[in-house]
Amino acid sequence: MSRLRFGISMSLDGYVAGPDQSVDEPLGVGGEQLHEWAFPLAAWREPHGLAGGEVNESSAVLEEATAGIGATIMGRNMFGGHPGPWNPEAPWNGWWDRNPPFHHPVFVLTHHARPPLELEGGTTFHFVTDGIGEALDRARQAAGRRDVALAGGARAAQQYLAAGLVDEMLINLVPVLLGGGERLFEGVRTDLAGLRPVRTVATAKVTHLRFARRSGRLAGGPG
Amino acid sequence: MSRLRFGISMSLDGYVAGPDQSVDEPLGVGGEQLHEWAFPLAAWREPHGLAGGEVNESSAVLEEATAGIGATIMGRNMFGGHPGPWNPEAPWNGWWDRNPPFHHPVFVLTHHARPPLELEGGTTFHFVTDGIGEALDRARQAAGRRDVALAGGARAAQQYLAAGLVDEMLINLVPVLLGGGERLFEGVRTDLAGLRPVRTVATAKVTHLRFARRSGRLAGGPG
Repeated sequence: MSRLRFGISMSLDGYVAGPDQSVDEPLGVGGEQLHEWAFPLAAWREPHGLAGGEVNESSAVLEEATAGIGATIMGRNMFGGHPGPWNPEAPWNGWWDRNPPFHHPVFVLTHHARPPLELEGGTTFHFVTDGIGEALDRARQAAGRRDVALAGGARAAQQYLAAGLVDEMLINLVPVLLGGGERLFEGVRTDLAGLRPVRTVATAKVTHLRFARRSGRLAGGPG
Repeated sequence: MSRLRFGISMSLDGYVAGPDQSVDEPLGVGGEQLHEWAFPLAAWREPHGLAGGEVNESSAVLEEATAGIGATIMGRNMFGGHPGPWNPEAPWNGWWDRNPPFHHPVFVLTHHARPPLELEGGTTFHFVTDGIGEALDRARQAAGRRDVALAGGARAAQQYLAAGLVDEMLINLVPVLLGGGERLFEGVRTDLAGLRPVRTVATAKVTHLRFARRSGRLAGGPG
């Protein structure tokens, strides 16, 4: 069965988004600092349709994290948009442009039903109202032999971690303090998450901490 | 002027002690995991009066952190003991044995005055009731040309960080989740702390993240 692989960037004080998130600052105040390690990389630019870019120690980590993914799950806030039921008169089509960087089906956890949203480049957003299990089932069906990525945010991740459904976890720890915002590890216990550390890669900008299910095995070697 | 150097071990979810701290479990449930990287090291065993031990990438980090320290500051919980004023009939002399590993003056932040406690090996505990500034002044006087270590716990560290008094910070990040306990970074903003990352050393058991005052300079090179 395809694995559920969770990857996210987190500040030293544990936040995956800064305080005061808004349409103008979807990552919260200071939240863009969490992703500055990735922006210059060729491995980040390529799926975003941009040429060129750097290659460094983080490149292999990012490439590995995005390779072999056939579907993505995300929480409602990560898809974004106004609160309340979907309004066909004022549709919100996500934070991305017409050609989002996923290029595969994306399953959005939400309380508000909405028809699938098909954008360019192979990305279709599906809105799942029946909870994390249903979203994982549908994402696995869509992914086939490939894996499923869990993209965040914090609340979606907490639910999958608490349910013991995450097979691999990659925390990109950025050495900044945001002082507030959305905290990733809030009430998640080790024994529930069932993960063990398998490898750490440190660079000047980010430390990549990789975890895997205790009983499991990483594809491609011992990690 | 001697620098204030803060060093502490922290879990991935940001705790420097686990939940349910007690006399039986002073580090809280699971809290001993935060220090397992250090226990086997010769650099940890030597100041504790123990022979032998391992040498690995963490050794140099630990040696550097303890070198050139002339005085230590700690919060009341780190010294430990029953709540309420000092009772000469039932004295609490700290978590350590007759010969604590400091071997220099230690200034304990507390609300309860108490005469200094002189133990073996050069460690004398002084109890400071006039706040963090007074403790730092006295520690600097005692340290002379050497530096002052801030040993924790979380609340003492938060006060010194928020006041912008910390010159160097070493976070030993241990890839475990404690799920609760004493959180180090609670409401500490980068701009207040005034620290920037200078070096990261990753091992299988721990990631050492080193920070320095933005305007400052590390002794012994650029870090």
